[in-house]
Amino acid sequence: MVKTMTEDRVFNFSAGPSVLPEAVLQRARAEMMNVRGSGMSVMEMSHRSPAFIEIFTEAKEKLRSSLRVPESHEILFLQGGATLQFAAIPMNLMEEKTADYAVTGNFSAKAAKEAEKYGTVHIACDTSGSGHNRIPTQDELSLTPGAQYFYYCANNTVYGTEWPYVPESGAPLVCDMSSDILSRPVDVSRFGLIYAGAQKNMAPAGLTVVIIDRTLAGRERPFTPQIMSYETMIRQDSMLNTPPCWCIYMLSLVLDWLQEQGGVEGMEQLKKARAGRLYAYLDESRLFHAHALPGSRSDMNVTFRTGDADLDAAFIRFAASRGLVNLKGHKIAGGMRASLYNAMPMEGVEALIETMKEFEKNHV
Amino acid sequence: MVKTMTEDRVFNFSAGPSVLPEAVLQRARAEMMNVRGSGMSVMEMSHRSPAFIEIFTEAKEKLRSSLRVPESHEILFLQGGATLQFAAIPMNLMEEKTADYAVTGNFSAKAAKEAEKYGTVHIACDTSGSGHNRIPTQDELSLTPGAQYFYYCANNTVYGTEWPYVPESGAPLVCDMSSDILSRPVDVSRFGLIYAGAQKNMAPAGLTVVIIDRTLAGRERPFTPQIMSYETMIRQDSMLNTPPCWCIYMLSLVLDWLQEQGGVEGMEQLKKARAGRLYAYLDESRLFHAHALPGSRSDMNVTFRTGDADLDAAFIRFAASRGLVNLKGHKIAGGMRASLYNAMPMEGVEALIETMKEFEKNHV
Repeated sequence: MVKTMTEDRVFNFSAGPSVLPEAVLQRARAEMMNVRGSGMSVMEMSHRSPAFIEIFTEAKEKLRSSLRVPESHEILFLQGGATLQFAAIPMNLMEEKTADYAVTGNFSAKAAKEAEKYGTVHIACDTSGSGHNRIPTQDELSLTPGAQYFYYCANNTVYGTEWPYVPESGAPLVCDMSSDILSRPVDVSRFGLIYAGAQKNMAPAGLTVVIIDRTLAGRERPFTPQIMSYETMIRQDSMLNTPPCWCIYMLSLVLDWLQEQGGVEGMEQLKKARAGRLYAYLDESRLFHAHALPGSRSDMNVTFRTGDADLDAAFIRFAASRGLVNLKGHKIAGGMRASLYNAMPMEGVEALIETMKEFEKNHV
Repeated sequence: MVKTMTEDRVFNFSAGPSVLPEAVLQRARAEMMNVRGSGMSVMEMSHRSPAFIEIFTEAKEKLRSSLRVPESHEILFLQGGATLQFAAIPMNLMEEKTADYAVTGNFSAKAAKEAEKYGTVHIACDTSGSGHNRIPTQDELSLTPGAQYFYYCANNTVYGTEWPYVPESGAPLVCDMSSDILSRPVDVSRFGLIYAGAQKNMAPAGLTVVIIDRTLAGRERPFTPQIMSYETMIRQDSMLNTPPCWCIYMLSLVLDWLQEQGGVEGMEQLKKARAGRLYAYLDESRLFHAHALPGSRSDMNVTFRTGDADLDAAFIRFAASRGLVNLKGHKIAGGMRASLYNAMPMEGVEALIETMKEFEKNHV
């Protein structure tokens, strides 16, 4: 049996919802019945109460500080996941005109398809022909002059690629950072809009963070639901109605933990160390092969396979028997996927490599 | 000092998010690090994993059983709160035609206003003239022949009224039950669509339950976001994207507790006992007066006042000093409001009445 986490916990390589820092869960547990001397759980607080407003404001300020979000940009705490943003973005920003979409995986393809309801979608690139195993270079991007925005997904969770650069475009950049937000420093001022579902690097599922250049809000189509209008939500400080309070509280705890770990710089070091170890092993292995090409590889979601679906399945079972779980790849990609989000300790990666080596020894 | 709850907890009369059963919080605490032997928190589970699908399915089945939802109706677990449903309902059901809206309070007025974006709203009644202190009779409702649906809000959280009957209308009934769902038996077959934000009687904020007659789905307007299409969400069993997993888990725990308390029949007895005690005292008091008229009074949100705003404020402070918190009325209604949701124990109501009597003795 390889070393496991404490409290009879497994190493959880799920792509999302995914592992949370143990220290965060322990603190949530300790505060479950009575948070900050309020005599109640954070789940029982009126969202308009001073006690909750304090938690809400702290979470927002910690996020602003962690990501160094400039004052030009607003932070919104929303619901509905990336899928609701697939519609909210064109409803608010497209104005029935043209937007450029970089299709480098499953979720960017979905975003482009949803946007077709609201205007003209120009496909700036499409890597489906090569199984989305790489990110195009800047020169390969086809850009529309005067586009309303350029949309891309920073990290491809399904196929395991990550943009190694921030694309240049005359239009405002709109970026889905769901699976790599808070894993590295980002120059937010270069973006018109960044959004992320919380359930990978931030908090439990049910919270979507939007960071938007204030000047882009206020252009929504007349049929936009009030709660999907960025302008309205900015004006209401995300409290047009009851926000997902528990997730916001959990985000606040995660951001405390992140700070203790050295912030996004600390996370970037860790992710490079974690993924670097695993890719180095994959590039040497005679059994396992990485799917994504060097230069485009994700540090968050490492996809790999043996080339034999039965052997892949056998490995996944073998790893699970060792307490290494959720290594099965996305159904449309197959193979294996090890998601190495911020909360994955280096011990998890070491245990995985050790397990892969043992399996390789018995199957080559 | 009046008797308080255990674990240094207060009696929390918040209108929502609101008190949860202590036993539920204790169970969530116990399972925080490792639920059902999975080696992880429910917050860390892939929503597509067998372990989470089991929790999801159980929650849905328990809800179906508790509310006796017939097979003709689908249960959806959504995000975005009632406010997103204010738009989703007309986007899906209105077809640019006319719908009748009964305006008996703050949230039904907001729903009617949002629906104006998508078709013709006919106001079936409007009780704002009397401070929303009563529910109109069936004869008072102005109905449009051939309306797409009749919309009403079963319980008015802000002003403290509750429909004592299910209205008759040739059109499908659409009902916002956010603040009284699971507090009494309901003949679901009479409704085209029932929805409720979870944060009062069901679970923490971040989950919206929709119960819809299967035959009403599939008529959404072309600009409807995919995630707001009832047809799509029925087909995807609410899993087009990651659902609010923690809230669904909490709902499952709440439904176990509800069953132990005698289900919705048990809840109805309790709510009549709780609210009955408080209204009986209010009708006798020389200081405090109920806002809502007999016959229209809510068992969930009891609104009352002294008639003197300073005295109201003094009472709210006095009660808080005794561990009875969140008794301040909604800002647009003023006065006091005691929300007596399912999880409020009778001891809380007794402590409140005792505190009111003492305050009355010193101020009359």
